[in-house]
Amino acid sequence: MSTATKTVLKPLDDRVVVKTLEAEQTTASGLVIPDTAKEKPQEGEVLAVGPGRLDDSGKRVALDVKVGDVVLYSKYGGTEVKYDNEEYLVLSSRDLLAVVEK
Amino acid sequence: MSTATKTVLKPLDDRVVVKTLEAEQTTASGLVIPDTAKEKPQEGEVLAVGPGRLDDSGKRVALDVKVGDVVLYSKYGGTEVKYDNEEYLVLSSRDLLAVVEK
Amino acid sequence: MSTATKTVLKPLDDRVVVKTLEAEQTTASGLVIPDTAKEKPQEGEVLAVGPGRLDDSGKRVALDVKVGDVVLYSKYGGTEVKYDNEEYLVLSSRDLLAVVEK
Amino acid sequence: MSTATKTVLKPLDDRVVVKTLEAEQTTASGLVIPDTAKEKPQEGEVLAVGPGRLDDSGKRVALDVKVGDVVLYSKYGGTEVKYDNEEYLVLSSRDLLAVVEK
Amino acid sequence: MSTATKTVLKPLDDRVVVKTLEAEQTTASGLVIPDTAKEKPQEGEVLAVGPGRLDDSGKRVALDVKVGDVVLYSKYGGTEVKYDNEEYLVLSSRDLLAVVEK
Amino acid sequence: MSTATKTVLKPLDDRVVVKTLEAEQTTASGLVIPDTAKEKPQEGEVLAVGPGRLDDSGKRVALDVKVGDVVLYSKYGGTEVKYDNEEYLVLSSRDLLAVVEK
Amino acid sequence: MSTATKTVLKPLDDRVVVKTLEAEQTTASGLVIPDTAKEKPQEGEVLAVGPGRLDDSGKRVALDVKVGDVVLYSKYGGTEVKYDNEEYLVLSSRDLLAVVEK
Repeated sequence: MSTATKTVLKPLDDRVVVKTLEAEQTTASGLVIPDTAKEKPQEGEVLAVGPGRLDDSGKRVALDVKVGDVVLYSKYGGTEVKYDNEEYLVLSSRDLLAVVEK
Repeated sequence: MSTATKTVLKPLDDRVVVKTLEAEQTTASGLVIPDTAKEKPQEGEVLAVGPGRLDDSGKRVALDVKVGDVVLYSKYGGTEVKYDNEEYLVLSSRDLLAVVEK
Repeated sequence: MSTATKTVLKPLDDRVVVKTLEAEQTTASGLVIPDTAKEKPQEGEVLAVGPGRLDDSGKRVALDVKVGDVVLYSKYGGTEVKYDNEEYLVLSSRDLLAVVEK
Repeated sequence: MSTATKTVLKPLDDRVVVKTLEAEQTTASGLVIPDTAKEKPQEGEVLAVGPGRLDDSGKRVALDVKVGDVVLYSKYGGTEVKYDNEEYLVLSSRDLLAVVEK
Repeated sequence: MSTATKTVLKPLDDRVVVKTLEAEQTTASGLVIPDTAKEKPQEGEVLAVGPGRLDDSGKRVALDVKVGDVVLYSKYGGTEVKYDNEEYLVLSSRDLLAVVEK
Repeated sequence: MSTATKTVLKPLDDRVVVKTLEAEQTTASGLVIPDTAKEKPQEGEVLAVGPGRLDDSGKRVALDVKVGDVVLYSKYGGTEVKYDNEEYLVLSSRDLLAVVEK
Repeated sequence: MSTATKTVLKPLDDRVVVKTLEAEQTTASGLVIPDTAKEKPQEGEVLAVGPGRLDDSGKRVALDVKVGDVVLYSKYGGTEVKYDNEEYLVLSSRDLLAVVEK
């Protein structure tokens, strides 16, 4: 997995930048996803993490994920952006569902 | 019931990972559901539990369910994911309705 | 009325499990509902009561109904479930409108 | 006006039980509503009053209406119920607009 | 202007009772509205004022308008009622936009 | 610009009264808007300013604009009113986007 | 990039004024976007920054971006305005997703 991919995006607030993992890769758990399941991976690697939102007393709420984490995210969340022919997703941490353990 | 099933998903926030119980099994109460009722089980086993959401004062609110619980959940909640040919559901604990006693 | 009906469902949060009272029964007030009114009973008996939701300071807010109460509920609230050929409704206490006095 | 009508409904939270005043009655102000205006009375008599909702500090907020008050209510609020051939409306106190003075 | 019009409605919460000013009258500023502008007066006289909503600490928030004020209100707010062949509008004070100075 | 225009409207809460600047005028920055751009000025002069909304502790939150300011506002906000053949807009201060510097 | 572009707009609240970067420019990361990607830049330069919204205790919450920052923003946020043949976007800081590092 390309943890070395650098991003020029510094997320604001509670957002993260995620690189969608392509369906022809093996999954984090090591198994190859058969072609029939290719349509819904929703899995990605965290490339950058925002400083967290401000709570009511003005303190930052740190995010629960870190750069390098593989995450499962909600299919309809986020904004797609393209840099240097690579597609990224900028997501609110609210749209992150789970960390996929390696 | 397959409490031994391991999941690679570590839920974030107040989410849980649930393994849908298939309709041809007996229910938690021991009775066999006839074929005509197969279309709405909504029952599943909790495989993983998130750390809980942060309340206004920054403390985690522990979840009311634990790994191994059989739960009834809202039919329209959650995100379906597939790993190793098994289907899982990642649900917010708000979508859990009741624990099914064994 | 079947107060002895046992349920295997332990409601979470502020939810209750209700057994819908069938329209051919007499109502709680003792009168027989004529056939023309059969289409909207919305009356049920409370079989199980959740621990209550957590308020902002982390305390449980006890529910205003108890097991055995006959309640009037909002027609569009709740989730229908079927166990052992009996239909139940899992409702948030917000969808309970009134207690029907006996 | 039938202030003697008894109701078997004990409203929960901030709800009230209202008996719709029929259009062929005179209005509270003593005037007879002509037939052409029959379609929108929205006026009713309060038969039962709930204990009030709980505020953020856990105290009950008493309702501003009492049994016997004639109230004007929002046409789209409330749930209609029928007991003993009489129609009632269970309304949140938020749907009460004004008290009609006698 | 008919400040003497009495209303039998005692508004609840932060509501006001308003008597719509008819388009064939002169406006509050003294000018006659030509026929072509008749379709959108939205101007009315305040006939009754509620006690105000309760704030979070349980105190009443007094309204910023008083009986006799001519107000401009939002066209889609409020509930129309008819008493004694006169039309009134019951409005939340949130739907009041401005006081028209005389 | 007609800062001398008087308005009979005294805005309530956090509202302002704005006089739409017509497209055939030069803009605040001194340039003439060509005809092709006439359809979206959204620029107006503040004629009257409300006292501000009440915050949670019951204090008025003063507005960030003053009479005479030229403001840019959200196209879909506000309520149009007409007095003496002049069109005005009553806007919540939330719909004000920026002050146009002169 | 035209950091020297002056704007006559002074944003209110938590808003920023952004100058959309045109697709035929190179991106902030130095690469030329091919013609096929021209339809979704969503990248812009911050020209002016508001004072920040007021939090619950009445203090301004300073923005996380400053004049000169290149930002990625949500495609559906903001209001387009045109001054002197240049198009600007007035955005709430909530619609800013990330800062593009140079």
